[in-house]
Amino acid sequence: MPSYKLYYFPIKGLAEPIRFILSYMEQDFEDIRIEKDNWPALKPKMPFGKMPVLEVDGKQLHQSAAICRYLAKQCGLNGKDAWEDLQIDIAFETFNDFRQPVAAYYYDPNEDSKKLKWETLSKETIPFYQGKFEELAKNNGGYLANGKLSWADLYFVSCIDYLNALLKQDLLENTPTLKKLREEIFAIPAIKKWLEKRPKSEV
Amino acid sequence: MPSYKLYYFPIKGLAEPIRFILSYMEQDFEDIRIEKDNWPALKPKMPFGKMPVLEVDGKQLHQSAAICRYLAKQCGLNGKDAWEDLQIDIAFETFNDFRQPVAAYYYDPNEDSKKLKWETLSKETIPFYQGKFEELAKNNGGYLANGKLSWADLYFVSCIDYLNALLKQDLLENTPTLKKLREEIFAIPAIKKWLEKRPKSEV
Repeated sequence: MPSYKLYYFPIKGLAEPIRFILSYMEQDFEDIRIEKDNWPALKPKMPFGKMPVLEVDGKQLHQSAAICRYLAKQCGLNGKDAWEDLQIDIAFETFNDFRQPVAAYYYDPNEDSKKLKWETLSKETIPFYQGKFEELAKNNGGYLANGKLSWADLYFVSCIDYLNALLKQDLLENTPTLKKLREEIFAIPAIKKWLEKRPKSEV
Repeated sequence: MPSYKLYYFPIKGLAEPIRFILSYMEQDFEDIRIEKDNWPALKPKMPFGKMPVLEVDGKQLHQSAAICRYLAKQCGLNGKDAWEDLQIDIAFETFNDFRQPVAAYYYDPNEDSKKLKWETLSKETIPFYQGKFEELAKNNGGYLANGKLSWADLYFVSCIDYLNALLKQDLLENTPTLKKLREEIFAIPAIKKWLEKRPKSEV
């Protein structure tokens, strides 16, 4: 059995989808959380100076989406063929297009431009993507692609959890199909176990 | 034979990697370029209101990376197994991390914050990624992954061309391994043919 060590900050962020998928696989992993003060010393040892990094038998893997897609192939969370994989990738990349402006708003250090970003985000971006993703799930039997569970669903649900904490609201409150998807994923025994044991973090 | 219609603005941007891969496949495609004035009328007809969109036999595909990964599987520009695909995905996502701040700088409408972005970009981001990508290619036999040509290389080279136009410099000038990779890709007969026939665009 390969050994897995996951390095990230002590938050959900971009590591939580990896933690979800490893948990879904029932794969033990060391969940190493680097405090801000210890990061500068570690940064040069990480490929491209970034985290999350998943160490598999000592080999450093980076880029959360690439890691999730790779792990998904080991536990049937990928598609059955190239066309299905394409649909999963489209759903994931589209969610990424939504995640980025949310993060850009939250981490903006300038109060004025932050306010401006919030205007667009709250009036346009959030309602637009909520409607579109709800529609996507409705058309796909409650999932984001192919009428069945995939890594894009786990990525979406684990990351929404993080975005909700940033935005101090539940993005899925008025999207019943997506809300049900989250409930279904949270009820998977291996995920439930992870949710119960994961360290509490504000975001 | 399926019919391919590619919709995008009259620039290289995020469609150029798709145009490169379709050309590499020697696949005919309609290269539909939407002028800015015609975009508002078309936008609601595009999934998630964005381009590029590749129409394959009338089915609308979106998200440039998802499309490239899908096409790559049809012409051997993917990996031979999950591990190789992972390396390709890591290289692609890392390049994306570089592309985004370049685009954010170029499209920033505020002169002050644009100036600030240029400071970080020119002094930190650009030299850092130039060095890291050159090293990556050196360690991979001149390619970005697995010691052989993949869709990540085509994505990288076609998109660098675009970023160079935005930045008014050649990002590969002092990275001989990457420069050679570009030369090699530009010399592939099908790509060469595309470069000769593609419409001229400033960016």
